[in-house]
Amino acid sequence: MADVPSMDALVALLRRLPGIGPRSAQRISYELLVRKRDLMPQLAAAFQQAHAVVRFCERCNNLSEAPLCAVCRSEHRDRSILCVVESPADLRAIEDTGVFVGEFFVLMGHLSPLDGIGPEALHIDRLSARLGETDLQEVIFATNPTLEGEATAQFLAGLVPDGVTISRIARGVPVGGELEYVDRSTLGRALHGRRLLDE
Amino acid sequence: MADVPSMDALVALLRRLPGIGPRSAQRISYELLVRKRDLMPQLAAAFQQAHAVVRFCERCNNLSEAPLCAVCRSEHRDRSILCVVESPADLRAIEDTGVFVGEFFVLMGHLSPLDGIGPEALHIDRLSARLGETDLQEVIFATNPTLEGEATAQFLAGLVPDGVTISRIARGVPVGGELEYVDRSTLGRALHGRRLLDE
Ligand SMILES: [Zn+2]
Ligand SMILES: [Zn+2]
Repeated sequence: MADVPSMDALVALLRRLPGIGPRSAQRISYELLVRKRDLMPQLAAAFQQAHAVVRFCERCNNLSEAPLCAVCRSEHRDRSILCVVESPADLRAIEDTGVFVGEFFVLMGHLSPLDGIGPEALHIDRLSARLGETDLQEVIFATNPTLEGEATAQFLAGLVPDGVTISRIARGVPVGGELEYVDRSTLGRALHGRRLLDE
Repeated sequence: MADVPSMDALVALLRRLPGIGPRSAQRISYELLVRKRDLMPQLAAAFQQAHAVVRFCERCNNLSEAPLCAVCRSEHRDRSILCVVESPADLRAIEDTGVFVGEFFVLMGHLSPLDGIGPEALHIDRLSARLGETDLQEVIFATNPTLEGEATAQFLAGLVPDGVTISRIARGVPVGGELEYVDRSTLGRALHGRRLLDE
């Protein structure tokens, strides 16, 4: 509105969030300014707090408020199985299935030469160190079932030491889809049905 | 996530915004925490700023950062025509048509006896005062074309002094719809095609 620059600024920022278009940003702003004013300071505090305390796990890149995330701190995880995923959201989707007891490594993306995303952007050094731990027996690549996700898995498989089993999450998930949005049971079955990478 | 309470708090707050479900709230939070961290302090500041400076116009209830909104401050509006709307978003929708030169009064809702919303919630005292201004010649009720919006217009028509023309925005807008989401040209035509309330 010509007259309410603070609202315009809010609308412009909200539009930068995923899934929020111009209409939606305006609707949210009106709702907050007219009917839910108390939510605004709460939202401001929540954004500040999350920005200040949420970081990335030093071992696996998962979101965490401590140096190590809950998975990496746990004494009940099987360190001989490592599941490699693209994002913390994918890690969570797999955790939510309840069928995986191993550890994770979050790449924070996938190889995408056209976008200038090469191996160095995927924390390859730390992944290599993790792959070198002596008790590792299997690596499951659970990158997205997209072209980039497949290429990333193929590339990273070359870093896995001899003698360590390499598997790829089964294609129970729809090709071209995003792991984060697959329902739990499909994702759980896909984990159980994983196959060796060279089969 | 069991381990990231600041993220859980953020997701819970985002879910209280209109049009944002649990999936969407989680997706937005991951996007911010993983890829757009710089947006979080900006959002925090924007919410604080909007909360601190955006208020309601003392004359018409429109959103404003000054005691009087841009419409009420303008010297180019026709004070003889008053358009009564339910919300600041509806006011803006009508302003955006560019065909209305009069002033507004924002009710901040509609009568809804079942929800306990009676006339006192709609700033009736101030509306009555505005209706009593000597140069007023016409009141256009542009409440939503819903049952509640119609009933509100009917009720408020009883407050309009004798000799002042009462009209209702034409039903070019889809019945049961929300004014805020009607396209400009439909809304513009509906304004031009307004009819007397007792026709
Ligand atoms: Zn971790
Ligand atoms: Zn005003």
